[in-house]
Amino acid sequence: MTGDTVVEEKEISQAVIGRLPRYLRYLGELKDEGIERVSSQELSEIMQVTASQIRQDLNTFGGFGQQGYGYNVNFLHEEIRKILGLDKAHRLILVGAGNLGQALVNYTNFERRGFLFCGVFDKDPKVCGKEIRGLLVRPMEEMDSFVRKNGIDIAVLAIPKSSAVEVAGQLAACGIRGIWNFAHVDLKVPAHIQVENVHLSDSLMKLSYNLSSAVYEG
Amino acid sequence: MTGDTVVEEKEISQAVIGRLPRYLRYLGELKDEGIERVSSQELSEIMQVTASQIRQDLNTFGGFGQQGYGYNVNFLHEEIRKILGLDKAHRLILVGAGNLGQALVNYTNFERRGFLFCGVFDKDPKVCGKEIRGLLVRPMEEMDSFVRKNGIDIAVLAIPKSSAVEVAGQLAACGIRGIWNFAHVDLKVPAHIQVENVHLSDSLMKLSYNLSSAVYEG
Repeated sequence: MTGDTVVEEKEISQAVIGRLPRYLRYLGELKDEGIERVSSQELSEIMQVTASQIRQDLNTFGGFGQQGYGYNVNFLHEEIRKILGLDKAHRLILVGAGNLGQALVNYTNFERRGFLFCGVFDKDPKVCGKEIRGLLVRPMEEMDSFVRKNGIDIAVLAIPKSSAVEVAGQLAACGIRGIWNFAHVDLKVPAHIQVENVHLSDSLMKLSYNLSSAVYEG
Repeated sequence: MTGDTVVEEKEISQAVIGRLPRYLRYLGELKDEGIERVSSQELSEIMQVTASQIRQDLNTFGGFGQQGYGYNVNFLHEEIRKILGLDKAHRLILVGAGNLGQALVNYTNFERRGFLFCGVFDKDPKVCGKEIRGLLVRPMEEMDSFVRKNGIDIAVLAIPKSSAVEVAGQLAACGIRGIWNFAHVDLKVPAHIQVENVHLSDSLMKLSYNLSSAVYEG
């Protein structure tokens, strides 16, 4: 246990980063229940991971825990929020106003985390002019100037793979910093643009694998 | 390179399994283009992973590749399909007929992979009786008997976290084998039920982390 309070973001492995949102979720629930401190043993029981894994993950960021006291729930929650960049708001556009896109814009949890949808774009003239949660659906031609004028940093792609590569290129050209990609294709964008993929088919195939190997085993 | 043709599913690590859908996607595209064989070097270039990673991953299943010939695209595609259990059809129900649920039922790619939606359930009486892609939305009370009578093996949960735990319990009781969970909560179900989570918020937080660490680095 060190006395460090400065967080060195660069040293954290992607594996630990991938686990942080889950810590944040459980700590948020403890916070909502008014619980002020929690031991790694208690966290271990509710999260169903080993206490040593928890200590190892959380010690990456310096001395959040104290022997005999455990973790301060509020403090740890706030530190993980900062590490994940959730202390700053992000401005998003949605590209593709189909069912999936509408579901994403309507999901209030994202807003609560600081992800604000500011504009919606679609190439279908029949959809343009409609409103989704108070946001006008605009034609693709307006995307470039909208992104530049409104300080948009993240674009959410909920469009078919056939058009995703082209649209990603347009987004790169107008200075977007991050793409949350639901199209089932790997985007090729300049290295300074961060891409996070949600490949739903891949997830379903993993489930299928686990179902068929469960049969073989049992 | 061994002469094994029998695939030993149990020995494959989850990390390799997680990469198989992506191999399948690229091999499917090569197949569609009429390409019959591909070297690990060529695959490496289009998939942007190292050739040695590809050889290591694909050799896990025995001798698919041959020195100087490369991989037979059709054969490798078919073998990966079998490993992922995609040679058998799965029968699905959707629970939660909101925007996200509708998007999932309407996504024809899943059907093409053998995932057939057979029924839709919702607790909202105003939604029950409507149709989504020809499927009647039924009340939750009919879920148990529907699952039993129609040989449903996978339930897709597109409902809020507040009701997901209870519904998962009901699904466990009526003999479901797999749950594809979009609710932002960890389900506690018996170990023989396979759960695959799609936690969209977690994915967005990873993007947020990468955006803020890109700022620090650059």
